Amino acid sequence: MPTTKEIVYTPLTEITAIKLVKKLNLFSETEALTAREIGDGNLNLVFHITNAKTNESMIVKQALPYAKVVGESWPLSLKRATIESNALKQFGEFVPEFIPDVYHHDETLAVTVMEDLSHLTIARTGLINGETYPLISEHIGTFLANIAFKTSDFAIKPQEKKGLVAQYINPDLCNITEELVFTDPFFNYDTNEFEETLQRDVEDLWADEAVKLEAAKLKQKFLTSSQTLVHGDLHTGSIFANEQWTKVIDPEFAFYGPFGFDLGHFIANLLLNAISREENNRPPLFEHIVRTWKVYTNTWTALWNETNVEPFAENTNYLEYILEQTWIDAVGYAGCEVIRRTIGLAHVADIDGIEDGEKRLHAQRTALRVGRYLLTHQNEIKAVDFQELLK
Amino acid sequence: MPTTKEIVYTPLTEITAIKLVKKLNLFSETEALTAREIGDGNLNLVFHITNAKTNESMIVKQALPYAKVVGESWPLSLKRATIESNALKQFGEFVPEFIPDVYHHDETLAVTVMEDLSHLTIARTGLINGETYPLISEHIGTFLANIAFKTSDFAIKPQEKKGLVAQYINPDLCNITEELVFTDPFFNYDTNEFEETLQRDVEDLWADEAVKLEAAKLKQKFLTSSQTLVHGDLHTGSIFANEQWTKVIDPEFAFYGPFGFDLGHFIANLLLNAISREENNRPPLFEHIVRTWKVYTNTWTALWNETNVEPFAENTNYLEYILEQTWIDAVGYAGCEVIRRTIGLAHVADIDGIEDGEKRLHAQRTALRVGRYLLTHQNEIKAVDFQELLK
Repeated sequence: MPTTKEIVYTPLTEITAIKLVKKLNLFSETEALTAREIGDGNLNLVFHITNAKTNESMIVKQALPYAKVVGESWPLSLKRATIESNALKQFGEFVPEFIPDVYHHDETLAVTVMEDLSHLTIARTGLINGETYPLISEHIGTFLANIAFKTSDFAIKPQEKKGLVAQYINPDLCNITEELVFTDPFFNYDTNEFEETLQRDVEDLWADEAVKLEAAKLKQKFLTSSQTLVHGDLHTGSIFANEQWTKVIDPEFAFYGPFGFDLGHFIANLLLNAISREENNRPPLFEHIVRTWKVYTNTWTALWNETNVEPFAENTNYLEYILEQTWIDAVGYAGCEVIRRTIGLAHVADIDGIEDGEKRLHAQRTALRVGRYLLTHQNEIKAVDFQELLK
Repeated sequence: MPTTKEIVYTPLTEITAIKLVKKLNLFSETEALTAREIGDGNLNLVFHITNAKTNESMIVKQALPYAKVVGESWPLSLKRATIESNALKQFGEFVPEFIPDVYHHDETLAVTVMEDLSHLTIARTGLINGETYPLISEHIGTFLANIAFKTSDFAIKPQEKKGLVAQYINPDLCNITEELVFTDPFFNYDTNEFEETLQRDVEDLWADEAVKLEAAKLKQKFLTSSQTLVHGDLHTGSIFANEQWTKVIDPEFAFYGPFGFDLGHFIANLLLNAISREENNRPPLFEHIVRTWKVYTNTWTALWNETNVEPFAENTNYLEYILEQTWIDAVGYAGCEVIRRTIGLAHVADIDGIEDGEKRLHAQRTALRVGRYLLTHQNEIKAVDFQELLK
């Protein structure tokens, strides 16, 4: 007969979320707290806990055992909450300035308690409202190069790194990407979502075997390459920002994947925002793309030269090869992301939010055209070419 | 207080090996058995158990917790025995005709009891003695294509396959390959072994940055690509054969790796045997290389067309792309294997056994030259070109 009550998974309410942070001594028992559920509700519950008197606040995030976006029929392992918490801690070791502090994680409840970042804005929202976030590319370039290098075989002895690969195996969340990013948008599948006016453009894509071959190769690499710990879902909705700060959140899709994956997703989402803007407002986005890659290569190169554990790293052609492959993959992944955000299940507000139907259709057509071009010209496109592509 | 004796790992002796097979009811308690330790003793104990009266026999293989080849200072996880046993069972599901039957596995003792294949000969020994094994390429091509396809994302749903990737993570044994195949032979490291007469050729290799770049890329792929369950050490010493039969043993290096890895190692070892022969005795080896690849592609293509779970598989260019990459990687891995078997820690008897010093030196020089050529011409060399390379 058990003498202690076994903890079982139960979804939190506003009341039990407050009880939890008090029990953890993150707030004292006597404080008057309020809790508000602020999640978009697709995969998680997110409670914003505040003490109105002291202005202290934090976030309680809990994974749900299913994806609400398609009903309860798409079950999702709760293990992703532990993966997210581990990834945040891992990233925090290398680049704490770009990550929320993690105060507590409970594997059974699939709960993480972390720093409240609500003084910042979700970058997607800010960019849609015309913000430019002058430091975002400097920060994300630094973040990505540090994470990519420091969790790879170039920084960690392979025997140790293989333990991390196992720890971050994330079948359920990877499956979402495999289907919704790399498969469904390229076929006439029910999950796709697009306006009727786009039908002919979409059918053109479905018939384009050259584009589909490149998507297949990129999917294959996503399925089989464990180069580095990737965030896995680094769009502008996973970034909090203001003029001075940039914070990356929500790495529940984290797993060991290709070097260029996160980079491609970040670039694609800058590009989608650029596509949604009038031409004269686009330059800051193009500058961000160029700067992200420049900062990434500089940061990566410095780490490579100063800290590499791989004997072959003395060969400078090897450094060039790795950076070149990273970029080529990033261009390809950007292409897939731009396409699936236009015709797949999950769109972006940047483009869907364009009120004028003609302009929206034009933006969607541009996105499809550019996405296809990126896929079939991965080896040619440089960071400075994106501006030209949108003309 | 425990009431049953806890089993702890203890190396078996001939007496305890016999006790074990009787306890398992593989032989009856009253049978008169003899046991003989026949392992080469590098990594494992191997007992040949026989009932002289009935002629029944089997093999008891036990992993040692260290690699004897470099003393007890290179500790090796016993988990590899379970990986080996799981891989044999997995292979046996797909191609039982090419695998010994597994009767029993004990994880704690790191013991596998399996079919005795001593009516066959180790292929390396046979080839050195002038055997040609007419069916070996047909069999190994069939074996490799089946294993490679049926454990990949083309046959298994990715969510399920990721579980297998985790199960077969094999850090200690992969580390041996990472160091002794992909690193040490390309640098002036103490583990290397070669005759003084070869010094200048070896220094040429160490100074060849083009070759080292290709080795670095192949090592990277070995470290990060989880395309399929590979045997991991498929040289001709891991194959039992006669005129009719071919049996693959010893997959303790098994892990999820690149499609072309095993294929490259098998080809390299056929090539090393060809190099050791007089020119007029070489054609059967070249025919085996051509036939292995032909059977591999035919078998793979049939599986692809009939059983593929990947929607993009309908694109025939994708099939071509995968086969092309498999071959290019195989040529590269063959190059690494030929080089490391000539100047690394573990040589092959095919070449080291050449008694005439001049001829041996010539063979070693040929091996180094061909190995380097394979690495720098991976994209050009076809299966039919190997004969020409040795001229």
